[in-house]
Amino acid sequence: MRIAIQGATGSFHHIAAEHWFGSGNDYICCETFGDVFTALSEKKADSAVVAIENSRFGSITEVYDLLLEHKFPIVGEVAEQIHQQLIGLPGAKLTDIDEVYSHPVALGQTSRFLDSKLKNAEKVEFFDTAAAVEHIKRIGSIHNAAIAGHLAAEMHNMRILAKNIEDEQQNYTRFLIIKNGRTVVKNANKTSLVLQTDHQPSALYRAMGIFAKRNVNLTKLQSRPISGKVWKYQFYIDVETAGKQLDDIRHDLIADGCKVTILGQYMADPKTYED
Amino acid sequence: MRIAIQGATGSFHHIAAEHWFGSGNDYICCETFGDVFTALSEKKADSAVVAIENSRFGSITEVYDLLLEHKFPIVGEVAEQIHQQLIGLPGAKLTDIDEVYSHPVALGQTSRFLDSKLKNAEKVEFFDTAAAVEHIKRIGSIHNAAIAGHLAAEMHNMRILAKNIEDEQQNYTRFLIIKNGRTVVKNANKTSLVLQTDHQPSALYRAMGIFAKRNVNLTKLQSRPISGKVWKYQFYIDVETAGKQLDDIRHDLIADGCKVTILGQYMADPKTYED
Repeated sequence: MRIAIQGATGSFHHIAAEHWFGSGNDYICCETFGDVFTALSEKKADSAVVAIENSRFGSITEVYDLLLEHKFPIVGEVAEQIHQQLIGLPGAKLTDIDEVYSHPVALGQTSRFLDSKLKNAEKVEFFDTAAAVEHIKRIGSIHNAAIAGHLAAEMHNMRILAKNIEDEQQNYTRFLIIKNGRTVVKNANKTSLVLQTDHQPSALYRAMGIFAKRNVNLTKLQSRPISGKVWKYQFYIDVETAGKQLDDIRHDLIADGCKVTILGQYMADPKTYED
Repeated sequence: MRIAIQGATGSFHHIAAEHWFGSGNDYICCETFGDVFTALSEKKADSAVVAIENSRFGSITEVYDLLLEHKFPIVGEVAEQIHQQLIGLPGAKLTDIDEVYSHPVALGQTSRFLDSKLKNAEKVEFFDTAAAVEHIKRIGSIHNAAIAGHLAAEMHNMRILAKNIEDEQQNYTRFLIIKNGRTVVKNANKTSLVLQTDHQPSALYRAMGIFAKRNVNLTKLQSRPISGKVWKYQFYIDVETAGKQLDDIRHDLIADGCKVTILGQYMADPKTYED
């Protein structure tokens, strides 16, 4: 199978994809999330794995926008516990480092470590964690470090200068599995959908009542601007239901004046449940 | 007055600050939003102006997090219509450009223009729009351009190569005015608050009912992770009320098990109302 991921092999997207699909697949490594969706559109990939949120950093809103724009179905989710490593050349020491390369999210996840141990080092945003490791290897300076997962250090024979430097030990990223083409997931128990209300006061409150009266739990509520409409928002909602009950909810929402777009029905990863 | 802004003079923060405070003030130009809040904490600034959302790009979640962390009161808001300019050296033409520097939000706001007219140019993220203009002026290559407001081009005697290149003509950024020290705003009609529910199913629905039964309109609902709590969210809410009615709402929310933090009560900018 051809799987599009954001970032290089060795990245957390790669790790998440291996957990979902197993080994022996081909990877289409894309620089941006936009490129991942283009790879699906152009049928260069059969599936894709995209990060949608980190438990500390929050939603990756660009991916929310792309999901609605392209409407490839979500067929699964996988939550990965993220451990970030400070990675340098084999001869480097922590005190040598004056430039740190990584993805903005990884820089955000390790800001407490960076602010205390590498206060004066310049933080350079890079499109991918694992590619940042490749980049500093190519430069070959002991003054450069990258932040990435352990797999990237191993793949490139680099040294871990500081281990598990993430600010919060309970640091998870939730990845979505999306598929090129229609599909029905058996035993789905979770639905991702986009809701546009009629923009009247209390419209969102009424819509949430439609879930509440069935005791359906919302696990996520993410507002995003509606393109072309100033100060109007749509809501990306994850709910713990699917199938017939979801059909009923959708019917009631539409009857109440909402526009509903189903992004996918799939099995929840138990690691995404609240503690 | 000493006003901290993110970015250089000539930036949209500068323009918003002049609209609010008038001219004749001193500016503390900060590279990051974190630095803006540090300038207030260290009493190097009396007030600050921070962008909180763009009508196309959405919330600047980092600022939401900083508002709650530091709790400097919000005393006002100002919405600026954003026109982005492609700016180059006086001798440059659009066809010369192979590198475009700007803030990620400005790159996002002009992606349609960039994808059509500068498809092969490299997009380089910079910490500020106006500073990107300074940067390409210093480099001095006709192959570099920056995206910024017209004021930055004028201040640096640079050429506008393409005018008003934002994807959406109705493109506004909402800025908050925050103050170093407690204050009461007269005639406040809007409140920003942070709500933590008790994490039971329907808790947010019940909380929204407390607003709805008073016909109080929510103009913004932004979820953010709660630091240290995996898959738990708090809600940043803007409501069209203040004063006594807000006190009553706060009382009811607390009685229902919510934790409520008031970030500020202030006058709504009419440009932030829905069409």
